Amino acid sequence: MEVYFDNSATTRVLPEVRAIMNEAMDLEYGNPSSLHQKGVNAEKYISASRETFAKLLKGKENEIIFTSGGTESNNLAIFGAARANRRAGRHLITTKIEHPCVKNPMKLLEEEGYEVTYLSVDQTGHISLEELAEALREDTILVSIMYVNNEIGAVEPIAEAARLIHEKSPNALFHVDAIQAFGKYRIYPARMGIDLMSLSGHKFHGPKGTGVLYVSKNAKISPLILGGGQQNGMRSGTENVPGIAGIGVAAEAAYANLEEKISHEMMLKDALIDEMEKLPDVQVNSSRGEAGAPHIVSVTFKGVRSEVLLHSLEDRGIYVSAGSACSSNKTGKAGRKAASDTLHAIGLSNELAGSTLRFSFSRDNTLEEVEYCAKCIGELLPVLRRYTAR
Amino acid sequence: MEVYFDNSATTRVLPEVRAIMNEAMDLEYGNPSSLHQKGVNAEKYISASRETFAKLLKGKENEIIFTSGGTESNNLAIFGAARANRRAGRHLITTKIEHPCVKNPMKLLEEEGYEVTYLSVDQTGHISLEELAEALREDTILVSIMYVNNEIGAVEPIAEAARLIHEKSPNALFHVDAIQAFGKYRIYPARMGIDLMSLSGHKFHGPKGTGVLYVSKNAKISPLILGGGQQNGMRSGTENVPGIAGIGVAAEAAYANLEEKISHEMMLKDALIDEMEKLPDVQVNSSRGEAGAPHIVSVTFKGVRSEVLLHSLEDRGIYVSAGSACSSNKTGKAGRKAASDTLHAIGLSNELAGSTLRFSFSRDNTLEEVEYCAKCIGELLPVLRRYTAR
Repeated sequence: MEVYFDNSATTRVLPEVRAIMNEAMDLEYGNPSSLHQKGVNAEKYISASRETFAKLLKGKENEIIFTSGGTESNNLAIFGAARANRRAGRHLITTKIEHPCVKNPMKLLEEEGYEVTYLSVDQTGHISLEELAEALREDTILVSIMYVNNEIGAVEPIAEAARLIHEKSPNALFHVDAIQAFGKYRIYPARMGIDLMSLSGHKFHGPKGTGVLYVSKNAKISPLILGGGQQNGMRSGTENVPGIAGIGVAAEAAYANLEEKISHEMMLKDALIDEMEKLPDVQVNSSRGEAGAPHIVSVTFKGVRSEVLLHSLEDRGIYVSAGSACSSNKTGKAGRKAASDTLHAIGLSNELAGSTLRFSFSRDNTLEEVEYCAKCIGELLPVLRRYTAR
Repeated sequence: MEVYFDNSATTRVLPEVRAIMNEAMDLEYGNPSSLHQKGVNAEKYISASRETFAKLLKGKENEIIFTSGGTESNNLAIFGAARANRRAGRHLITTKIEHPCVKNPMKLLEEEGYEVTYLSVDQTGHISLEELAEALREDTILVSIMYVNNEIGAVEPIAEAARLIHEKSPNALFHVDAIQAFGKYRIYPARMGIDLMSLSGHKFHGPKGTGVLYVSKNAKISPLILGGGQQNGMRSGTENVPGIAGIGVAAEAAYANLEEKISHEMMLKDALIDEMEKLPDVQVNSSRGEAGAPHIVSVTFKGVRSEVLLHSLEDRGIYVSAGSACSSNKTGKAGRKAASDTLHAIGLSNELAGSTLRFSFSRDNTLEEVEYCAKCIGELLPVLRRYTAR
């Protein structure tokens, strides 16, 4: 039995996504900037995808910028907002549990003379609105808070945060990294007070190398990549037509029968949490119900190194993550350290953080898979713990 | 008859490129940063592609950075080199005929306090080595010269320029935009004295949304996009595995039977130039033989608006560009103005620049297509000129 429980790292591309990509690579391969029909036809794929996102987000088509992925979207939002609005102030706010592609741009901006406030989170990974209210200043120009944390699935109070931000810091733009949230929630940025919002195609069965940054028509940001002026000058470079077509089809599919899929994933989540809570010396870091995303379960297995359990599960055909796979394992410690910032922020020691696995679902997972996984863990734990104890 | 003579704008993706991309999207869809086998398998596509480029460029595998395209590669090279080396100086050199994705970063750097020298070119689009020698200073930290100009195909004296640069400006990095040259020439950056070199997948039958920046192990540049630390921290973000696999296969294919393909394209170029020179009031802007690339022919048709001729050819199934399609047509004048900078630099008036078409070949074009195209132009010109004269 093969069980892929690493959907927050990446997902399998849908057949209909591959189909439209092949079409755009083989039949309609023109450059959308070309004046002839092949250019016009290529441009149609982009318009269609833009329309899909505008419709799903209840936004305007010119508020959609296509990027090369979630990392570029987050970089564009943060550098773009900070640099375009520096005359209004130099104060930025974010949280201690952001993805490295938010955290590292923030660190670079600190070197450039910006001041950054990092909000703490409680044991369940949620920020405090009181702490946010206190942090907001007149010279705050950007607040960046993720919608769903990628390591434990905590869902942040985005709408409430937006109200506070716009009330207390009229010059601030509100950026939301919604990379783990898109396709799980209906998100309407304008209505919720979100100015900038990042999406990543490969997290919802779209292609790797594709992303979106929603930029409210009222938000002013500077481009990160300059050139031929494509996408209204906000993101130059020949558009990745197959990728843009693909991410559009994936987005459409993500929102078909949404409620049904979400209640299915919620059921899987509750079932896995139930099973894990039966085991001795096991701590579930994710929240049941609405406070946690439907697809992410973080579990700490005391006395077992996460990599050891990960590979033991792999031997039984089960694929999971240690912490988060969104950081490179190439850099060794750097990647893993970054991945455990969230776990430290919710109060886990180094040892417990190093004993934590993330299980992440997609629509395609089944209860049978959850039961099989729980059974395997139940069998492996005593063995691995005995091994560790020796 | 359908004749695609717009291969410098973009090329059709090879079937074997699509095949490996589908494999990486459907079967081996893991995140290369995941610790389990699906991650390891995904990583293998990246290693294989990196190996291909290292071999083709006679470089090291850790000198290859995968990007989202030529525009990002050029931005990374220029911003990255300028910002990482600003303590050694603030003087940059480039040419008047660079692509907007070199020119516009240079302009932004001027706003940030860097000084930029723009080298002029002669009527055939070639820089003067004397002018370069005079421009080089001790505080020059970056020189950026394109290998093949995208509008007229002029081939710049890269190896000679490299010798001068390293002799006169020991702190300078030499960046080469080789986007129109890769797959046409055997380029060995280390041997030629190139420190940074940009490539774009969709110009050689690879996927859109893919690019490479070669960074010599001796060159220090700052990353443009920060995050999880992938690619040694030089380009964060989950790698576009299908795209990276695809660009590798395309590169391999580009250099198979290279000499044969190049002599075929050279033959097409000479044939088209011969035919064009027979027509009255027509001026060829591209060089025959070695001074011009094998695949680009720029022609000025006096008294005819390029768009009118472009669409008339399109009616007969022939696809070409007005100037260059690498700039967005969405921004209207901006795109077209940028596209004609090269034509102005070689001495064309606004009117003549606006009467210029670019024909660009791939391996798949035939002499029959050239003859058909020349015949159509011969028939159309007198009609369109009469129309314009009225």
